Amino acid sequence: MTPLYFLDILGTAAFAISGALVAMNKRLDPFGVFIIAFVTAVGGGTMRDMLTGRLPVGWMNDINYMYTILIATLFAIVFRKRLRFWSKTFFLFDTIGIGVFTIIGTEIGVKAGFHPVISIALGTMTACFGGVTRDILCNDIPIIFRKEVYAIACIVGAITFLVLEKFIANTNIIYIATTLIVITVRLLAVKFKLSLPTFYSDTR
Amino acid sequence: MTPLYFLDILGTAAFAISGALVAMNKRLDPFGVFIIAFVTAVGGGTMRDMLTGRLPVGWMNDINYMYTILIATLFAIVFRKRLRFWSKTFFLFDTIGIGVFTIIGTEIGVKAGFHPVISIALGTMTACFGGVTRDILCNDIPIIFRKEVYAIACIVGAITFLVLEKFIANTNIIYIATTLIVITVRLLAVKFKLSLPTFYSDTR
Amino acid sequence: MTPLYFLDILGTAAFAISGALVAMNKRLDPFGVFIIAFVTAVGGGTMRDMLTGRLPVGWMNDINYMYTILIATLFAIVFRKRLRFWSKTFFLFDTIGIGVFTIIGTEIGVKAGFHPVISIALGTMTACFGGVTRDILCNDIPIIFRKEVYAIACIVGAITFLVLEKFIANTNIIYIATTLIVITVRLLAVKFKLSLPTFYSDTR
Repeated sequence: MTPLYFLDILGTAAFAISGALVAMNKRLDPFGVFIIAFVTAVGGGTMRDMLTGRLPVGWMNDINYMYTILIATLFAIVFRKRLRFWSKTFFLFDTIGIGVFTIIGTEIGVKAGFHPVISIALGTMTACFGGVTRDILCNDIPIIFRKEVYAIACIVGAITFLVLEKFIANTNIIYIATTLIVITVRLLAVKFKLSLPTFYSDTR
Repeated sequence: MTPLYFLDILGTAAFAISGALVAMNKRLDPFGVFIIAFVTAVGGGTMRDMLTGRLPVGWMNDINYMYTILIATLFAIVFRKRLRFWSKTFFLFDTIGIGVFTIIGTEIGVKAGFHPVISIALGTMTACFGGVTRDILCNDIPIIFRKEVYAIACIVGAITFLVLEKFIANTNIIYIATTLIVITVRLLAVKFKLSLPTFYSDTR
Repeated sequence: MTPLYFLDILGTAAFAISGALVAMNKRLDPFGVFIIAFVTAVGGGTMRDMLTGRLPVGWMNDINYMYTILIATLFAIVFRKRLRFWSKTFFLFDTIGIGVFTIIGTEIGVKAGFHPVISIALGTMTACFGGVTRDILCNDIPIIFRKEVYAIACIVGAITFLVLEKFIANTNIIYIATTLIVITVRLLAVKFKLSLPTFYSDTR
């Protein structure tokens, strides 16, 4: 098991827990909670695979994703009341997941020979589309379109990956540096309540 | 025409009618009613085919699905006021459709050599995802995530199929038994108002 | 650059602007505005490509779409207050886009040897699905299901294309005639406030 695979599973679990928590907030039944956890965890990679033609999509060929999400969902259901006290730990795992998913998606784009901008889009999509699907299924406007700097962290991470990949041969160093950049951008953004500038003040 | 194909067309018609009724309830125009009927009927199989790479998706290669849905939609529009009196007949067709769609999806998974859990997911998705898409397009949280035992009937049916397929050579017997199991689970669940246990009483 | 490619880019820009305007109306942040512009512009072609198996989808292999959408989004953001005064020009571009997208989708269906009804569906989907995705992401029931004659213009255009394609060898004439038909149907429909007949008066 490579370190990236381990982090991928960790990120999958963190995403599944985040999906399960949103679903429980909407008071869905256990089946609904599992499905929302599932699409939050694999939705980004699934969309990437469907768009690029890597079919069957990834989670169909590796049953570990299914088991990880099942266990994470049960965990979220059982410990739903305590998870709020672990929110910092959980936030860290979730951010690691964002970093790893960004790397995986960007690398797939690079290896398939896509334009760098498309590779950045694939990395960002891998990290973000699960949450978008979760919000659509839960009948919200996706949070990422409204106030998250989440996507910016992915885009910065994907660009970092593309730049480092030109100069550094050791992929582990690239992975670690990219993940640290994603974590740093997201932490700084949350700490200083950064968000994209709005331009609506003058329109209404 | 095999019996399974006949039942597939019957299930497609029943799903289309169910979609058309929901769309008319939302007061969509005739084009919208047809589109909702269409995605309700073929949405599950389409998602299954897009995820597994069976492209072009099934309904593109067999125009009978399109015609079935068109006729079913017209039927639903013309008889919309009377359909409520036929609700038991309609419920039976709909449940046959669920059973048949579960079988088709699960069998595709088995033949493609997927893990049994993935095959169960494919069967359940084939039977359920059309209704999920219908609810998303109509701007509802999918009903299946809230109070339907529908998905449970599919999962039980898919497991039945997988078990029988190990021991029985005659596929027709497997198909009939699986469909009967799905129908029985759904009828019992509706009759006794069974639903998945909730666990929210203590959280708010 | 063929005339059809030029019109495709023009239509892409018009669709992106229309998406950006809807997104700004929902007060999304700049990233959200770009994403909504993007899916409005490429959503139809993307769904067509995913269903038919033309993978990777079109915009991944031609970076001009991405750049067009980026520029159109910036344009829409900068000139958002003035765009209302240009609404007739914008409406014309948008309608040209609908015509061109219908042609592209229908032609793909014909060349792939699909049944004419499926080709019509592909053309209509190419022109309409971007707007459907935009509305789903913005948490509305897609406008096309409620009061737009938009889809009818596409269906009429696709049928025109199929008929002309049987009798006329010169593709440019077919393209021009089809686009003019789409523009005419839409303009007439808007001018005379035509819409599909509703049938709800007697049901409530």
